Amino acid sequence: MIRANDNYSKLKASYLFSDIAKRVNDYQKKNPDADIIRLGIGDVTCALAPAIIKGFHQGVEEMALDKSFRGYGPEQGYEFLRQAIAKNDFQDKGCDVAADEIFVSDGAKCDCGNFQELFAGDIKIAIPDPVYPVYLDTNVMAGRTGKNVDGRYEGIVYLDCEKQNNFLPQLPKEPVDLIYLCFPNNPTGSTATKQDLKVWVDYARENKALILFDAAYEAFIREDELPRSIYEIEGARQVAVEFRSFSKTAGFTGTRCGFTVVPKDCMIYDSTGAKVSLHAMWNRRHTTKFNGVSYPVQKAAEAVYSPEGKKQVAEQIAYYLNNADVIRKTVADLGFDYVGGKNAPYIWIDGKGRDSWEFFDLLLTKASVVCTPGGGFGRCGNSYIRISAFNSLEKVETAMERLKKALK
Amino acid sequence: MIRANDNYSKLKASYLFSDIAKRVNDYQKKNPDADIIRLGIGDVTCALAPAIIKGFHQGVEEMALDKSFRGYGPEQGYEFLRQAIAKNDFQDKGCDVAADEIFVSDGAKCDCGNFQELFAGDIKIAIPDPVYPVYLDTNVMAGRTGKNVDGRYEGIVYLDCEKQNNFLPQLPKEPVDLIYLCFPNNPTGSTATKQDLKVWVDYARENKALILFDAAYEAFIREDELPRSIYEIEGARQVAVEFRSFSKTAGFTGTRCGFTVVPKDCMIYDSTGAKVSLHAMWNRRHTTKFNGVSYPVQKAAEAVYSPEGKKQVAEQIAYYLNNADVIRKTVADLGFDYVGGKNAPYIWIDGKGRDSWEFFDLLLTKASVVCTPGGGFGRCGNSYIRISAFNSLEKVETAMERLKKALK
Repeated sequence: MIRANDNYSKLKASYLFSDIAKRVNDYQKKNPDADIIRLGIGDVTCALAPAIIKGFHQGVEEMALDKSFRGYGPEQGYEFLRQAIAKNDFQDKGCDVAADEIFVSDGAKCDCGNFQELFAGDIKIAIPDPVYPVYLDTNVMAGRTGKNVDGRYEGIVYLDCEKQNNFLPQLPKEPVDLIYLCFPNNPTGSTATKQDLKVWVDYARENKALILFDAAYEAFIREDELPRSIYEIEGARQVAVEFRSFSKTAGFTGTRCGFTVVPKDCMIYDSTGAKVSLHAMWNRRHTTKFNGVSYPVQKAAEAVYSPEGKKQVAEQIAYYLNNADVIRKTVADLGFDYVGGKNAPYIWIDGKGRDSWEFFDLLLTKASVVCTPGGGFGRCGNSYIRISAFNSLEKVETAMERLKKALK
Repeated sequence: MIRANDNYSKLKASYLFSDIAKRVNDYQKKNPDADIIRLGIGDVTCALAPAIIKGFHQGVEEMALDKSFRGYGPEQGYEFLRQAIAKNDFQDKGCDVAADEIFVSDGAKCDCGNFQELFAGDIKIAIPDPVYPVYLDTNVMAGRTGKNVDGRYEGIVYLDCEKQNNFLPQLPKEPVDLIYLCFPNNPTGSTATKQDLKVWVDYARENKALILFDAAYEAFIREDELPRSIYEIEGARQVAVEFRSFSKTAGFTGTRCGFTVVPKDCMIYDSTGAKVSLHAMWNRRHTTKFNGVSYPVQKAAEAVYSPEGKKQVAEQIAYYLNNADVIRKTVADLGFDYVGGKNAPYIWIDGKGRDSWEFFDLLLTKASVVCTPGGGFGRCGNSYIRISAFNSLEKVETAMERLKKALK
């Protein structure tokens, strides 16, 4: 008899953003004339930059002729892209990352979700709360948790991120083996200083733990002194993996490309305590279960690093950050406490005691504005909502006018 | 201490095709003037058809304007593509498959590799030998096997495919829960009749087993009476999942798109014996760990089903099958026994007692021709090689001339 992976039954039936989409669709059906403004899922809205489109078309054009056609590429990504990433995102910024430590993929969501496969089933995992649900759900699926009791999975060490700790995860009281960190943070938009990250790198080195660092939003950092990569911290090469994405940086949410950095210095331990190369393990996983990113998409990603591409992408980021400023100003004027939006596209708003789904429904029904209910990211988000800066300035301004009316 | 998934240590250090690439690169380095002809990995060589290029460019062009830009799409694929697949590949051919049973992905390799996550850790798995290594390796990684002893993993039920059974897997002597089947077969090129498949569907129904059916090569079927889909067999909707790919059908090996059919009728069982919807489980997995296929790639895939696309793609398939005829004729003239090449792009050649890696090295060094050693696909392939028809006719003819000289 073919039996199921019973761990799936521990999960909530659907993924957070599917739940939201359903509520929004139901509302639209009942209110066909409602002009809904989406500041929820955090999906970019600006067209791909001209330099990227040019690279993309060129890639397609090469596929049109036998002599320049590309079949299977290296699973890890083409050398031209791995080199461009290593140079521009790391080496030029003083981080010691080589091209062959970059694994190009179809997105950071997949990599964040798949990376846990490399670890034993009974490791202890620390996960911030609130958190991007993928870190948690994929470990539930893999059987690394017990049941969900009162909204929390047994066996997980939750790192509460609240106002009193400035929405920064604090070192756990019990030993952990694997730590998920994300800065600039999704969903709160909070950032970590080098000193904040150093505490974690030191902890990992002392405890033979590993950090999975999600830097999908690094491009939104405006303050020069904030670290953009975990590899700006001394010793991180031995204890940290970094996930990056072109989704938010260059508008690739529908184009699909990201990458993961696995330094060759990074060692984990087998059941006898012997060292195992994490790079070799991820390489084996990546080559066995993945077949590389579409060639034209890799050409499009390469163009992100061209002089024009860099300039155009920076303009888009500035555009979204200006939206974030508009949102922050409105929220502050309305007397709400918030964090984020300064070095991140997300603003995390304290609902003044409102339940987050109730707040979500209020904004949807009174202002036709979609946000994300904080409770979907964890218990610590129960009285927060996340508003995203990804939309046109015009729509953001309209949404903020509506919020002023609905919430005054 | 962060501990590794020890199951990885059971695997061979590298993936078959990486091993081959290394040998070929070493040979090329030592013989820089050698004009190597690659009939190994099974990678297509014809440019994407004009209709596909047109759809691909259009998709890119839509990404260039804010008003037509696409961000996150449905993880399961756009409706336009799911509808086109369901209609053209199934409904028009009499198979009862609905659009919402199609899950579009970045390739059949990923889906074949990931699907096992839905099952319990201790199910009994039947896998043909020889076999596409991904089925086996991904189950090893997941801990469903014991050690590798003499080239076989403990705990797996191997279905020997040899000359005496016409290279068709036979029903196992012990009960199994999950069965991997692939027709037209990779690596042997053998095909199964409807009656052959019915035996397996009936077995699965009687034993509450599940079939994972890999139909990546269905487009190469020339004989009308051979089934192109498992769903041509009555009752298969309850017990079979089908993997499909645009890679070999439409030249997408470097473009990346495939899909998996999970019928809503397909039920598996939880640890209490209660039925669980496989469709719901795969949907949860797909939405949690995957973020959809690049929009322009989906537009390119849609164009495969346009009238021009269908015609152009059929011409490419005919071109490769003509190559296969050239290979079959040469191999027969040289007095080798073989199977495949008639309804498949692969020809599986009995090396007359030679070890397959020895035969591989012979062809590489004497003819500068790359094949795939059968031993890489399993013990039953130890005295076979696989030759692929994916190349230009000119190169296939040159390769065959060289084989005639080297092997006479």
